[in-house]
Amino acid sequence: MSQLRISRVTVTPVAFEDPPLLNVVGVHQPYALRAIVELHTDSGLLGLGETYADEVHLARLEAVAAGLPGHDAYDLHGLRRHVTDVLGRETGGGGASFGGMLDVDSAVDTVYSPFEVACLDLQGHAAGVPVSDLLGGAVRETVPFSGYLFYKWAGHPGFADDAWGEALTPAQLVEQAHRMVDGWGFGSLKLKGGVFAPEQECEAIEALRSAFPDMPLRLDPNGAWTVETSLKVAARLAGVVEYLEDPTPGIPGMAAVAAGTDVPLATNMCVIAMEHLPPAIAQDAVQVVLSDHHLWGGLKKSALLGGITEVWGMGLSMHSNSHLGVSLAAMVHLAAATPNLTYACDTHYPWKTQDVITDGVLSFVDGSVAVPTTPGLGVTLDRDRLGELHELYLSCGVRRREDTVYMRSIQPDFEVNTARW
Amino acid sequence: MSQLRISRVTVTPVAFEDPPLLNVVGVHQPYALRAIVELHTDSGLLGLGETYADEVHLARLEAVAAGLPGHDAYDLHGLRRHVTDVLGRETGGGGASFGGMLDVDSAVDTVYSPFEVACLDLQGHAAGVPVSDLLGGAVRETVPFSGYLFYKWAGHPGFADDAWGEALTPAQLVEQAHRMVDGWGFGSLKLKGGVFAPEQECEAIEALRSAFPDMPLRLDPNGAWTVETSLKVAARLAGVVEYLEDPTPGIPGMAAVAAGTDVPLATNMCVIAMEHLPPAIAQDAVQVVLSDHHLWGGLKKSALLGGITEVWGMGLSMHSNSHLGVSLAAMVHLAAATPNLTYACDTHYPWKTQDVITDGVLSFVDGSVAVPTTPGLGVTLDRDRLGELHELYLSCGVRRREDTVYMRSIQPDFEVNTARW
Repeated sequence: MSQLRISRVTVTPVAFEDPPLLNVVGVHQPYALRAIVELHTDSGLLGLGETYADEVHLARLEAVAAGLPGHDAYDLHGLRRHVTDVLGRETGGGGASFGGMLDVDSAVDTVYSPFEVACLDLQGHAAGVPVSDLLGGAVRETVPFSGYLFYKWAGHPGFADDAWGEALTPAQLVEQAHRMVDGWGFGSLKLKGGVFAPEQECEAIEALRSAFPDMPLRLDPNGAWTVETSLKVAARLAGVVEYLEDPTPGIPGMAAVAAGTDVPLATNMCVIAMEHLPPAIAQDAVQVVLSDHHLWGGLKKSALLGGITEVWGMGLSMHSNSHLGVSLAAMVHLAAATPNLTYACDTHYPWKTQDVITDGVLSFVDGSVAVPTTPGLGVTLDRDRLGELHELYLSCGVRRREDTVYMRSIQPDFEVNTARW
Repeated sequence: MSQLRISRVTVTPVAFEDPPLLNVVGVHQPYALRAIVELHTDSGLLGLGETYADEVHLARLEAVAAGLPGHDAYDLHGLRRHVTDVLGRETGGGGASFGGMLDVDSAVDTVYSPFEVACLDLQGHAAGVPVSDLLGGAVRETVPFSGYLFYKWAGHPGFADDAWGEALTPAQLVEQAHRMVDGWGFGSLKLKGGVFAPEQECEAIEALRSAFPDMPLRLDPNGAWTVETSLKVAARLAGVVEYLEDPTPGIPGMAAVAAGTDVPLATNMCVIAMEHLPPAIAQDAVQVVLSDHHLWGGLKKSALLGGITEVWGMGLSMHSNSHLGVSLAAMVHLAAATPNLTYACDTHYPWKTQDVITDGVLSFVDGSVAVPTTPGLGVTLDRDRLGELHELYLSCGVRRREDTVYMRSIQPDFEVNTARW
């Protein structure tokens, strides 16, 4: 019998300040939500996980947590069965924080993920090895990330302007990019598009190219364009972007675009679960899949995704939602142990000013984060910070991510831009 | 830094008596060869692996072993790089014990496999958990195997008859099956075909069906038939066999058969490496893939194969060559931790009378082997037995598996039966 019996589980919702970042479905609310999962053992070990915290998702996490004491942290297959059993028939994907951008068919992967990560953190602590070792060993000592640029307002209406200021023009985005590169050392840049007409967003990319002649660039309009528009943009930005992410919605649409351009198409929208891979591959719809362990069912299933993309000769990159340090640690271990993850990973990390972990472990040097070499995830929960951000969760009033609802509270006639242009 | 530094490596070739089992390329030689890999750590731990021992393969194992001291047993990705570096350009697949039946493009997977298994054995010993826990946890307490029936002579020419006696007719095969079922409790049966004309082998299957009305049956002629013949056999045995294994050679041939029958087609010949999956899936050539960690690059890569078959809705079973107890232990842990491995696994185990491990752990009850729950693989090397079988290796004269050469020494006009009928 394993010594890794889980004795106590806590799920703590937290909120942290988030700037007014614009996207295809609206704008980020003033507070982003996350849930911190703690798995304790009688032997005094602690395993950590981090996930979304929309109220539906939170209720599911709590329901799963209630049945976990006594469970063996090595028994991941049993954990998955437990999640499936608890969710029962009520497995609709609603509840994860996609702000209306994604529609997942099943909540099993998203609910399972933070518990799986926390179990691997426990396994690492028990065996005295970093989580990357449990995934086959780190193939790189540091993991490169891309600077994530956003169109944004100067501040949330009714709040003071944030430190980043307004970014609605190419010149302002270039200024934002300089801050990202100067502050974090990023060696590649991604622009979240789908906010303005594609001509304007192409101009922004071209301005970034002029300002950063050698920097790999990406544009992600989250399916804001038709197939025809996507092909026009691809022709204009060929040789400028390393890939276009989700120019148009759906696997058939992406396949139609892919058939007409040599620019690689990436996705975090039309291939977001294992069952989307067979049709996407059969139609050659995407050339780069963005993994995300929160969405794809944990680190081991993300490693499976990595293996599949390698077998089929597809590229692999990594997606990010607004997140805190526990998630970043898991992302770093996964990326380090995935040989074919050769693109710099996305991260929202520079956009947040608060965290639940102690400082110092996960710092950006030259745009990269050193892979922790201490046991488990290698991060330490700061209980004061956790308490503060939980208090903020209780007081902030946000209970789910609703980019469109929030945008309409400011611009009542706002319509989502999906396939708009 | 991990405490799992490998300090010493040994590779010991062994031989054990093997009955004259007939197949499409000839007949098993009087001795089967295996190599036992031992990884020792300074802390006194021992990790075990088992693989083929044809002389070309053995030389590669020795070359890899020479560079392993100092390597961290958690760094499996680094181990794979080391194997690739050592093999260099000379990675042709010759050397693994397929008796001329398989042609693998690269030796990396087969050379890497026993070292990976031994590293996982070490990891399990270090963490105090069984190898199945390192693969996500056992989803079943016992692993069912199928009884593996062979056409065979009464004994090797020049040797005394073996305990099994001749099996060249349906009645003799039924008798062999009764011995298998009575002795080991198997709940399913596989017949190695490709020896006689398909009509005779169909009669054998039908005789087995009469003798064992409820027993799942399989027939594996190792590609002995044309597409046309395969379709005739499939029509005749529809509803009688749970699957037909490799009726005809090659992915296009298998696809042509699959298009004309509802009988699931299984393979251990046309899909034996990751690069075969995309074309096989695109052509819907096979419905069941037989995994084999010796061939597919270890336990973790076999788990990846399991994940891929699950994603694409394919069946998963397990292949066997003549093997000893270290291999059986690894097969049992892998099968236990692979949720979608729902077919009973193949094994040659009943055909051997010798071993290198101590008795008692891996016993067959009702055709199944209980998954060891002690750390690592859960088996113990018996150094006296290892020494005896190494002596047998040194004295027996066999240095590679050569079913056809051996058959021709007895029947000079023998031609392999591939696509013969």
